[in-house]
Amino acid sequence: MVQEFSESQRIVYYDTEITGCVGIGKLVDMMMLISEDHSASVGVTNEKVQSYGLGWVVTQHIVDITRLPKANEIVKITTKAENYNPFFCYRNFWVYDENGKELAKMHSVFVLMDQTKRKITRMQPELIEPFEAEYTKKIERLPLPKGPTVPDKKQEYKVRFMDIDANQHVNNVHYFDWMLDSLGADFLKTHTLKHMNIQYKQEIYYGQTAISEAQVDGVNTYHKIRVDDNPNCVAECLWTNN
Amino acid sequence: MVQEFSESQRIVYYDTEITGCVGIGKLVDMMMLISEDHSASVGVTNEKVQSYGLGWVVTQHIVDITRLPKANEIVKITTKAENYNPFFCYRNFWVYDENGKELAKMHSVFVLMDQTKRKITRMQPELIEPFEAEYTKKIERLPLPKGPTVPDKKQEYKVRFMDIDANQHVNNVHYFDWMLDSLGADFLKTHTLKHMNIQYKQEIYYGQTAISEAQVDGVNTYHKIRVDDNPNCVAECLWTNN
Repeated sequence: MVQEFSESQRIVYYDTEITGCVGIGKLVDMMMLISEDHSASVGVTNEKVQSYGLGWVVTQHIVDITRLPKANEIVKITTKAENYNPFFCYRNFWVYDENGKELAKMHSVFVLMDQTKRKITRMQPELIEPFEAEYTKKIERLPLPKGPTVPDKKQEYKVRFMDIDANQHVNNVHYFDWMLDSLGADFLKTHTLKHMNIQYKQEIYYGQTAISEAQVDGVNTYHKIRVDDNPNCVAECLWTNN
Repeated sequence: MVQEFSESQRIVYYDTEITGCVGIGKLVDMMMLISEDHSASVGVTNEKVQSYGLGWVVTQHIVDITRLPKANEIVKITTKAENYNPFFCYRNFWVYDENGKELAKMHSVFVLMDQTKRKITRMQPELIEPFEAEYTKKIERLPLPKGPTVPDKKQEYKVRFMDIDANQHVNNVHYFDWMLDSLGADFLKTHTLKHMNIQYKQEIYYGQTAISEAQVDGVNTYHKIRVDDNPNCVAECLWTNN
């Protein structure tokens, strides 16, 4: 039986956008918080992971959205570390409204990163077994997001001091903001996000400038964040017209 | 007896900065949330205020910080609408740690803004009396922040779609981020904020570019946010050396 972990959280006005709904980056942050709390609850605290010279890093999120919750709604977030192989751990998340209706779900890929070598390492039994996830030799063949081929939008965002969180990384929310803001208000006010597949390739540091390129093709948008010629983050979104 | 209202809130990692502590802008957001909850608890909801064609607007915050709380601390925030005169309402806030030790306090000035004329209006008895604040004819003579005279720092920040919250304004946190980020990491990593006096003069809208100018004079910093030649927001900070 794979262990499940849940927590309730209130959506507050400062986590919402002009639409009155929480932003997708903030919702992903909330899910990541639940995964940290889950880890701590089974004794795999950040401090313990760090004592091995390692850190959990997300390489991909695939998010499906039924409805983004509004300010003052209480949502329940549930997560499971579903299964793992020698290099990857797959985690699922579900967000529910107060009536138990599913608002969003997310499938995420976690790896263990060697903090000095900055390289992916093998799963450590002491850090993965407490989740009671299923071991499998199979590596999931997840769809990879396509970036823009001929970008029609481009914006630059200089990384701010406040963009780095207590985990010493550019917080998740900023990648989402850089990607979606580049689409502009005309698009964002007339479309609703239904699906996002985002892949993280390379970290971004304080002082660097993130170049956000996007391409709009009807209700599909393609995104790339880069500092130089190599992509740091790629994503693909599916929207509906309002 | 002036009514008091309190709520507890957890500091989460994505509300913190590289220091591990919550950012000042986020802490002010948390205090403002408590003031909204206080208002709702006495029947003065945002919807009720809007039904009068009005909205509460903050013109000034004066914050004193003993210690900014870290990720996973539970803080208690208390507020009181202390007193009011025909045009201004003065509200106090206190932030306490789990042992009841004061971490920060804030004194804030609220006005009622006519939403169509964009002008300050007189206090409405139905919107102010439920707080049981003391009526006084006296207008407080609060110290006004001095902006930079000869700015030595300047950064530009284009307002993003996500900077506008459900209240349809650039969220508080961004003014603080624009002001403090312009000081740079060298200053921010070696200094701790103890006092901030911030005055809001004019709204900033989506698509505008905020120009953040600052001047450093030892442990005093002076800030101005402007879009054109007129200041939109002015602040003065006092820091200690780490």
